[in-house]
Order: sequence, then C-alpha cells, then structure tokens
Amino acid sequence: MSLVTIAIILGLLAVVYGFVTSRQVLGAAAGNETMQEIAGAIQEGAQAYLKRQYTTIAIVGVVVMILVYVFLDVPHGGTPVSASGFAIGAILSGVAGFIGMNISVRSNVRTAAAAQTGLQAGLTLAFRAGAITGMLVAGLALLAIAVFYWVLTGPAGYTVGGNDRTVVDGLVALAFGASLISIFARLGGGIFTKAADVGADLVGKVEAGIPEDDPRNPAVIADNVGDNVGDCAGMAADLFETYVVTVGATMVLTALLLADVAQLSGLMALPLLIGGSCILTSIIGTYFVRLGSKQSIMGAMYKGFLVTAILSIPAIWFVTQLALGDMNTVIGGEIQNVDAGAPLAEEGLAAQIGGFTGMDLFWCSMLGLAITGLIIWITEYYTGTEYRPVKSIAKASETGHGTNVIQGLAISLEATALPTLVIVAGIVIAYQLAGLIGIAYAATAMLALAGMVVALDAYGPVTDNAGGIAEMAGLDDSVREKTDALDAVGNTTKAVTKGYAIGSAGLAALVLFAAYTTDLAEFFPTLDVDFSLENPYVIVGLLLGALLPYLFGAMGMTAVGRAAGDVVKDVRDQFANDPGIMAGTSKPKYARTVDLVTKAAIKEMIVPSLLPVLAPIVVYFVISLVGGQENGFAALGALLLGVIVGGLFVALSMTSGGGAWDNAKKYIEDGNHGGKGSEAHKAAVTGDTVGDPYKDTAGPAVNPMIKITNIVALLLLAALATGAAG
Amino acid sequence: MSLVTIAIILGLLAVVYGFVTSRQVLGAAAGNETMQEIAGAIQEGAQAYLKRQYTTIAIVGVVVMILVYVFLDVPHGGTPVSASGFAIGAILSGVAGFIGMNISVRSNVRTAAAAQTGLQAGLTLAFRAGAITGMLVAGLALLAIAVFYWVLTGPAGYTVGGNDRTVVDGLVALAFGASLISIFARLGGGIFTKAADVGADLVGKVEAGIPEDDPRNPAVIADNVGDNVGDCAGMAADLFETYVVTVGATMVLTALLLADVAQLSGLMALPLLIGGSCILTSIIGTYFVRLGSKQSIMGAMYKGFLVTAILSIPAIWFVTQLALGDMNTVIGGEIQNVDAGAPLAEEGLAAQIGGFTGMDLFWCSMLGLAITGLIIWITEYYTGTEYRPVKSIAKASETGHGTNVIQGLAISLEATALPTLVIVAGIVIAYQLAGLIGIAYAATAMLALAGMVVALDAYGPVTDNAGGIAEMAGLDDSVREKTDALDAVGNTTKAVTKGYAIGSAGLAALVLFAAYTTDLAEFFPTLDVDFSLENPYVIVGLLLGALLPYLFGAMGMTAVGRAAGDVVKDVRDQFANDPGIMAGTSKPKYARTVDLVTKAAIKEMIVPSLLPVLAPIVVYFVISLVGGQENGFAALGALLLGVIVGGLFVALSMTSGGGAWDNAKKYIEDGNHGGKGSEAHKAAVTGDTVGDPYKDTAGPAVNPMIKITNIVALLLLAALATGAAG
Repeated sequence: MSLVTIAIILGLLAVVYGFVTSRQVLGAAAGNETMQEIAGAIQEGAQAYLKRQYTTIAIVGVVVMILVYVFLDVPHGGTPVSASGFAIGAILSGVAGFIGMNISVRSNVRTAAAAQTGLQAGLTLAFRAGAITGMLVAGLALLAIAVFYWVLTGPAGYTVGGNDRTVVDGLVALAFGASLISIFARLGGGIFTKAADVGADLVGKVEAGIPEDDPRNPAVIADNVGDNVGDCAGMAADLFETYVVTVGATMVLTALLLADVAQLSGLMALPLLIGGSCILTSIIGTYFVRLGSKQSIMGAMYKGFLVTAILSIPAIWFVTQLALGDMNTVIGGEIQNVDAGAPLAEEGLAAQIGGFTGMDLFWCSMLGLAITGLIIWITEYYTGTEYRPVKSIAKASETGHGTNVIQGLAISLEATALPTLVIVAGIVIAYQLAGLIGIAYAATAMLALAGMVVALDAYGPVTDNAGGIAEMAGLDDSVREKTDALDAVGNTTKAVTKGYAIGSAGLAALVLFAAYTTDLAEFFPTLDVDFSLENPYVIVGLLLGALLPYLFGAMGMTAVGRAAGDVVKDVRDQFANDPGIMAGTSKPKYARTVDLVTKAAIKEMIVPSLLPVLAPIVVYFVISLVGGQENGFAALGALLLGVIVGGLFVALSMTSGGGAWDNAKKYIEDGNHGGKGSEAHKAAVTGDTVGDPYKDTAGPAVNPMIKITNIVALLLLAALATGAAG
Repeated sequence: MSLVTIAIILGLLAVVYGFVTSRQVLGAAAGNETMQEIAGAIQEGAQAYLKRQYTTIAIVGVVVMILVYVFLDVPHGGTPVSASGFAIGAILSGVAGFIGMNISVRSNVRTAAAAQTGLQAGLTLAFRAGAITGMLVAGLALLAIAVFYWVLTGPAGYTVGGNDRTVVDGLVALAFGASLISIFARLGGGIFTKAADVGADLVGKVEAGIPEDDPRNPAVIADNVGDNVGDCAGMAADLFETYVVTVGATMVLTALLLADVAQLSGLMALPLLIGGSCILTSIIGTYFVRLGSKQSIMGAMYKGFLVTAILSIPAIWFVTQLALGDMNTVIGGEIQNVDAGAPLAEEGLAAQIGGFTGMDLFWCSMLGLAITGLIIWITEYYTGTEYRPVKSIAKASETGHGTNVIQGLAISLEATALPTLVIVAGIVIAYQLAGLIGIAYAATAMLALAGMVVALDAYGPVTDNAGGIAEMAGLDDSVREKTDALDAVGNTTKAVTKGYAIGSAGLAALVLFAAYTTDLAEFFPTLDVDFSLENPYVIVGLLLGALLPYLFGAMGMTAVGRAAGDVVKDVRDQFANDPGIMAGTSKPKYARTVDLVTKAAIKEMIVPSLLPVLAPIVVYFVISLVGGQENGFAALGALLLGVIVGGLFVALSMTSGGGAWDNAKKYIEDGNHGGKGSEAHKAAVTGDTVGDPYKDTAGPAVNPMIKITNIVALLLLAALATGAAG
C-alpha cells in the first residue's frame, strides 16, 4: 500500500466518524414542538442564505475557473489539470461549509433539549456536533489534496521532480479554489452574522428594551441564522482553506526545492501522513471531552485537546519514520549542515533547504504542536473571564462607554505581542532545525490538529443557538444558564481558532514566499530580482502589502455598519406597522429580515473579496511600468510579506480584542460591577457591539486574504512565464 | 559669507520674528480680572507640570549623555563632540516645547478677549500665537544643526568626507537628543492632556451632567493645562525632533554616500539652506492668514499655507543654484545615470546615489512640497465636517454608541490608504529622480514647511483654551461660538500636523535605514549581511518592528485610561466632600487635580518611552546569539523598517480617526442629527472620548518612536564598531 493511500484511508476515517457521529447527534431528542418550529425557521433561513451565497460565488468561481483554464491549462496542451484542481478546492471548500452549517442547525435544538437534563449532556451533544464539522473539515481537506495528488501521480502519470510542473501547478490551483471560495464565505457569512447581531441588539436591547433572543424581535431569527452561516459555515470554509494551503504549500515547496533527493516521494507524502495520523488522534481526543469533578467546561475541552496533542507526538514520529525510512539520514545536505547554527542566509536557496534529517522534521512538527498549544493558552488569557485583560475591560465599563472602548482597544493592541513572539521564536527555531522546509513542517503540524481545533470552535455557534432557542421557546431559566455557561467558553474557543489560523498563516506565508522566489528563479532565470530591503521598491511593496488588511478591514467594518443599519430600519418598520408584535399577540416577519440581511451580505462581500485578488496584479504591472520588470517582481514579492506583516497584527488585535469585549460583557452579566442592567453593563454592551465586526467579520477574513494574495502572485508568475515563453 | 552662515542668519530671522510677534501678542488686551485669574491658574498648572516633566527627563537625559560620552566620545580621544550634540538636541527640544507652552498660556486669554470684538481679531491673535511657536520650532531646529555643524567644521576644524566620522557621529547624537526628549514630552504631555480631558468629561458631562469647561468641575483647569502641555509643548518638541532628524539624516547620508564629490560642501549646506529659505517664506505666509468674504477660517489658513508653498518654489530653486553653482552638472554620476528609469537596485549602494543634477534635487524638493499639500488635503477630507467620513460617523451615532465607534474605527482604518499611496508615489518618483538622496530631499522639503504647519497646529490649543476661559468666565455666548468655530478648524489642523509628521517619517526612515546599511558596510567591511526578504531573520525583524507601535500604542492607551480613572476618583471625592462645589458656592481644588494628573503622567511616560530605546539593542543581541552576528544585523535592519511599516498605519489610523470622531461630535453639536443633548450626541461624545487617546497620546508619539529606534540602531553600530576595533 502506498504512503498516499494510507493518508487517503485516514482521511476517509474522518468521513466515517462524521457519518457515525451525525447519526448519534441526529438521533437525540429534538425538543418540543415550539423548539422545533424555531429551529426550523433558523434552518430554513440558513439554507436560503447559503443557497444564495453559493449561487453568487459559483458565478465568480466559473469565471475564474475559465481564466485558470485559459491561462494555465491551454498553454500546456489543454488538459484541464489546473482548472480541475481549482474546481476541487472550490467545491470542497463549499461542501465543508455546507455540512458544517447543516449539522449546526440540527444540533442547536437538540443541545437545548439535552441541556434540560444536565450540563454534561448539553456539552456532549454540542461538542459532538462541533467534532463532526471539525473532522469533516480536516478530512475533506486532506482527501482533496491526497486524492488529487494520487490521481495526478498515479493514473494520470505525471511526475514530480522533473521538468514537468503539472503537479505543482495543479496543487497551487487547488489552493486557489479553496481560498477564493473561503474568503467569500468568511466575509459574506461574517457580514451576515454581525449585521444581524448588531442590528438586533441595537433595536431590541437598546431601543425597545427587550432582552437578547426575545421572540418579539423580528431580527432574532436572522441573528441565530448568522451564527450558523458565519461562525460555522464561514469558519469551516476558512479552516478548510488554511489546511489545504498549508499542506499544499509544504508539498509545493518540497517539489520545488528537493526535486533531486532520493527521498522525494516520501517527502511529498509526509505532510499528508502527518495530517492523516492527527485525524486519528483528534478522533480519539474527542472522546476525552468530559466534565471533571470541578465541572469546568474549558477544562473538559483542554482534556480533549491535550490527549490529541500528546497522542500526536508518537503518531508523527511513526509516520515520519514510515515515510523516510531512517530518521537520521541527512537529506539534501550536500551543501552544508544547517544544525551548526551558523548564518545560513547568504548562501541563498541552497542554504534554505540545507541538510536536514527525519529527526529535524519531527522536531519541527513538535514545534508546530507547541505553537498551537501556546496560542491557545495566550488566547485564553486574553479572552477568558478569569484573567486581567477581560477584567480590566469590565472594570473600565464602570466609568462609561468611552473607557470601556479605550481599554478594549488597548487590550486588542497588546494582545498581538505574545503571539508574535511565539511565531517569531517558531520561525527562528524551525529555520535553525531544517531551513525553510522546517518552517513548512511546523505549519503543517499546526494544521494537522485542525480537526480538534475546529471541533472546539464549531461547538460555539451550536450552544449560542441553543441558548437562543431556549429563550425563544420559553424554557426554564436553568436551561439558559447552562447554555450560557457553554457559550462563554465558546467565545474563547472561537477566538482560539482565529489566532491559530492567523498564526499558521504567518508561517505559511513564508513558505508561499519561498515558493514565489523559487518559481521566479525557475521561470525567469535571466532576471536578477533584488529582494533586499535596500531596494526602495521592496519598501514600496511592503507598505502597499501592509495597507491591504487595513483597507480590507475598513470595507468589512463599513459593510457591517451599513447592513446593520438596514436591519434597524426594517425592525423599526415592523414594530411601527404592527403594534401586536411588541404586545406578543402577533408574530414578526422573521423571514423578511433574514432575506434583507441575505441580500445585503451578498452585495457587500464582493468588492472587498476581490481586493486581494486584484492588488497583486495591479502592483506588479504598475511598478513594472515605472521601475522595470525586475522591480515589479521585487515589489510584488514584498507585497506578499507586507500583507502578512500588516495582516498578522490587524487580525490578532481584532480577534482577541473582540473576544475580550464579548466576555467582559458576560463577566458583568455574571453579577460583577453591578451586573445586568447596570450602567457598566450598558457600556459593556457597547464594547461587545464594537467587538462584533472586529472579531467575526474583518479580523478572521484577513487570514484567507493573506493566502489569496500569495496564491494569486504564484499564478501570475505561472501565467507570465507562459506568456513570455509563448 | 559661507552658505552655512546664510542658513544661520535665516534661522535667526525666525527668532527675531518670534520676539517681535510675541511683543505684539502680549501687548493685546488680556481680558477682565476673572479671565486673568483663570488664565493664571492654567499657566501655573502648565508651568508646574513642565517643570516636573523636565526635571524627570533631565535625570534620564544626563544618564544617557554620560553613556553617549563613554561609548562614543571616550574611544575617540574624549573630546565630547557626541555628548555635546546630544545635549544641544535635548536642551533645544525642551526649549522649543517650553516656549510654545509659555506663548500658548498667555495667548489663550487674549484670544478670548479678542474674540469679543470679532472673529478676525480672535483668529489673528490665536494664529500669531501659533506662528511664534511654529517659527521658533523651525528656527531653533535649523540653528541647532547649522550652528553645531558650523562649529565642528569651522572653529573645531573637523572635516566631512575623509575618514573622520566626528561630524557624522555628532549629528546623529544631536538627533538622538532631540528624539529622546521629544518622545518623553509627546507621551507625557499626551497622557496628561487626555487623562484630564477624558476624566473631566466622564465625571462632569456624563455623571454630574454639567457642560464642558464648567468652572464647578475640579478637573477643568487640568483639562486646559493639558491643551498647553500636550497639544502645544509636546507637539512642539515632536516637530522639533522631526525637523532635526530629517535634515540631519539628509546631511549624514550626504556625508556617507557622496564623500568624494566636488560639490560636497555645497551639498552639506543645501538642506540647511532649504530650511532657512522656507522660514522666510513661512514668515511671509503668516501675514496672509486673513478671513475672506466667505468668512472661512480654514480658507484663511489655506491662504497662508499656499502663499508659503508657492513662494518656496523659487526660494528652493534659488538656494539650490546658490549651493551647487550649476543646476545641470551631474553629481556622483560616474556609475550610471539614474534618469534613464532603468532598474537600479541591483547595483547596490553605488546605484543608490546614482548620478543626479541640481534640477533633480529641485524636483525632489517640489515633490516634498506636493506631498505636504496632498497630506493636508487628505487629512482635511477625513477630518473635516463637510465630507463623507465625518458625516458618516455622525450619522452612525443615530443608532447608538456601538455604531458610532464601529464607523469611526472603519474610517480610521480607511484613512491610511490615500496617505500611504501618496508616500509610495513619493518614494518611487524621488528615487527615479535622484536615488536615495532624492528621497532625503523630498523629506527635507516637507520639513522645511514646518514653521507654517506648526503655526496652524499650535493655533488649536490656544483657541481651545480661549473657549474654556470664555465659558468659565461666563462671557457672552457669542464669544464661545466664535472660539468654537476657531477650535473646530483646530481639530483638522492638529490632525494635519500628525499626518505630516508621520508621512515625513516614512521617507526619513528610508534615509535612516540607508545610513544604517552604509555605516554597517563601513564599520564591518568583512561581514556579509543579507537584507533580502528571503532571509527569515529579516522577516523576524520586520515582525518584531511592526509589533513595537502596537505595544507602544497599548501602553499609551492603558496609561490614559488609568490616569483618567484617577481623575474621576479625585473629582467624585471633591464633589462628595464639598457639596458647595456643585451649588457654586465654593471653589473646587483645581490644583489638587492638576497635581494628581501631573504625577500620573510623569510616572506613566517612562516605560513606553524606553521601549524603542531598548528594543533595537535587545533584538540585536538576542538574534546575534541565536543566528550569528550577520543575522543580528539583518534582523536589526529589518526591525527599523518594520517599525515604519507597522507604525505608519497605526499612527495614521489613530490620528485621522481621532480627528474624525472629534469633529463628528462638533458636527452634531452644530445642530445635525438632533444636536446637543440628543442620543446621537451622547454616542458622539463616546466616540470623541475613544478618539482622544488615539489622536493625542498613542498616535502622535509613534513618530518620535520610529526615529528613536532608527537612531539607537545607528548609535549601537558606532558603539559596536568601537568595541570591535578597541
């Protein structure tokens, strides 16, 4: 059995887990008729939204696929390898989101029902629902790459390592498909969920004075739909993309840099095997998510994660040995040994691959696991209710809205420091161990845990919805208390996934940049592109790259503000035209609000999503025109790193800050600083509202944005090379 | 008469202008007794603060001066050239702030008195007060460099261009002195002004329900003191620093790169002459600041600026010809002609100086003037009440605090785009014209207008104070209306200066980085430092550099929050202990609050100010230890650019966003969206509060922070070179 086949089998295991567990979840009691009716409305709204979103994306997708075919496949004989890769990435990214949403909208009501019997029952159901999404995201992502790679190198007969670039181009196109769809899904879903959430809060809590999730609020169903299409479907598509790009980039870099080594086929399969083995350990880990004697929900989550992480250590050791045969043979080391710790960089590409052993790769993978653990810990510190940051925001709420926001912004700025230091340490250590390939393996190992991390995240919207259903269906207050407890942890786990995704993007961007420079050297061997910081065009590229997340963030925030304004107007209108709504005698037109937010979100997602697609192309052509082609390529390369240098901080500050604001509100609602209804609480609600588009719209969408910019640059290179040759 | 002597005479002209105009301003009527009493309290508080601030800074300053002497002068024979340079920069930076504050606290009451007679009278007085500060900042900065340079190259007998680095080291030390003092002044003053402002607003407007500047509020004097020590003294020290560093860096780069050209002495004097000639044009421009038929205050300001800018065109042309003799002789062009537009970068340093003519330098200077004009125009667009951004924030206030803040944040993110594009275009064009020297001249010409720009800015706190005094002294409402109209324009001009300072920093940072790489090549000729983006240590440096402004911003914001909290407690305490205060029968203890804010601001400014001093040293040593000395230098160099890539966006977004929030509040107060007291107004007050530490504390302090990081790196190089040699 080939190594890739083993990876495919492990990927299928995730699908089996998803199938079996979803039977368990769907078999659970679905609550009383009122609950089912509410859940039905949410389900209907979510499906209607996703249908419209995917229809729109499909149009863009088909156009881009044709462009991919024309520019990348036609010049190489017309076999649609790149176009197929693009389609597979795009479709499976959509499928990941679709399944996640469908599980989520069915588990919410069942979690509410289970919470009636106890905290453990609610936790088990919600977490299993999240785990289905998690395993399917990781499994489908692994299968997408593994099966595509297997078909290309097996039945289709292409080879890696020779002059044939078909496999590399196909993998890049696959990543592009995944990224393009996921930025639309992340942004569209993010705009939907926050427009509905902010709109519902503004007009419900603030104007009408009715509590959150009150069934009299016409935007309440839209708000709950948003949890599913944004926090669940959007997130799933995003993490699918992150997985595909990271593992794909590691394989592409291996194919480009290590084409001549004897262990090439093993090295190509190793990232897939690491991913596959960690699916197994993640599945085992899910069974350890159980409340202990302290009834700590976060503790239960940690148990599951820790079991997965610890089991992954021997699993990764085993597959590394399986793929490479011997752990101590030096690979690609004819140039120099990287372990010496001597300055390597001046040797250029040769040094970047250096010499490394299987043990080096194993240690780099361990580094990836450690980075993941540290990011989870840091995120919990910045967003958990027990620590200084959230408490300081809650305390600042006592002196008003202004000080709450000031302290929240200060925390959001500060929250970038520790993750950056962790990522920087990761880069240095991985590079010392095994050069650029080491960095790629650290990123791959991070993503290998995606099944578990997504499980923790996808659990959040399920509990959030469960709380909403409990409230709307008028269940006993004790049920809402349980779902609130589950949901508070969800705020932290949601922030964790975003920190994790953007952190891995920091490493993956280096790998993609290396692929860019390697491609450049291969496609344009006569050009002498100067990537030195002494070249002003490099500074120009860095500045323009760093600008992109700011502009993108501005567009995302404005879109939410605009769409939320539409919601406010619609709800005001419904209240005015039908006084029976507030009196509780007639039902609001939920579907009208859902439909309105759907249209607004779809309209608003297009322009910002195209920004990272078009920016690299525009920058390359403008700078080439002004400063010559070599400087055009230099500026484009610098743009790729500028996006990560700027985007890392924008994304980290937005996602951590938003999580901290949300939990500061929850902390006050738990009875601190005057509790619900106090002036401090009102200020905290403002902070939460501000944090909403930060953490769920603009911030997380930066991650796919960074990847798209990088991948478009790679595709541009390939297209230009074809143009220059043809 | 030597060229440098001419520059010194022009610098003295600024001092003469300051002296003459301050006699005029101080000769104006100082209002009634109540007004004078209030103004006296403000004056006393401001002087007490500055005294304490300068005492604290002096301690740090003396310690650093001794270190400068030990590490930079002792190894070169012990003549205290660098130590003297440091002392001159530090002391004059303090003097600039001190004079600015002293003029400001005497003009405020006179402006209030003048506003009683009419808008033009108020404008004239306030603008003249600002112009004194402006001309003295520019004049003292020019004199500091010109006299120091004259002494070193004249009486002291040092030469430029040989192996003797005394002059270069002295200029760098001078810049360091100016920067170090100015970061303390900017941050300390910024914390003071915003802690007092936010604290006074929270407890006065929000809790006690009394209007702004109500004399019953114990924090009201502290608030007005803050305008003087933060917006005036801190700003003056900051712009003094920006001027010294920019002009100094241009001279240092000239000395390093063009040591062998025949026109060296003219080229060394040219930046000083450009500065001097624009002092003359700025003085002329001040006489054109007059209201037209439309009574537009901003229009009057523009007239003054435009006259200055237009007169500067022939002035710069004249001094360039004076310094270089012939405008068309190619300087340093033996390597290649840069005008061809061909890719230059691969030739390294040789290409960076390329060949350029006097005309090229003239056009680069024109570019600097154009950049200044564009930044003013863009800033007005983002912070003026007539345009979309401010109106959109005002409109978003209708739906509450949350949407106001969301829209404000969106605008602050968006506001980075156009200035970045302008700076990028400036870099590309200047580089095409005359390589790195071209970029240096664009930056120098920008700063040459500092006299006028600072005049427009320093006018703001005077009118702000005048309004406060009018309110507290119970003058007729029509007076307050006039001062409010003057103050609204002040919000925009204050934002302009910050955008201008940070924009020039974007160009100056490139010049400083070039000085760093040139120094490195000179001091460590055997090292082969790789500044390529392909070197992961470069990425590490970029990430760590970009982190600094975030961490610095977080510290500044937190400091304001903490100090404002102290103010709130003190005011609550005063109200509780003496009910006569609210009744108006007894006077609050203004001095107690001033004293409290003083202590808090001084305490809070120390740690963040040391961050940019220590960060380059720590990064160099840690990375050298881990990755070898060459990578230590690479990471340090990348850190310098990372600070600007990160800091540019942080600073631009904070300063523009803060200005927009402030004017959105003013726009509502003008009667839009419900006017004063409406719900929209309350939301706008929240936005204004959030914007306060953004625009007046954290944002503007990023500019000196960027410079300090760069200068410390240069000094570190010099110290290491001495250590390596000795």
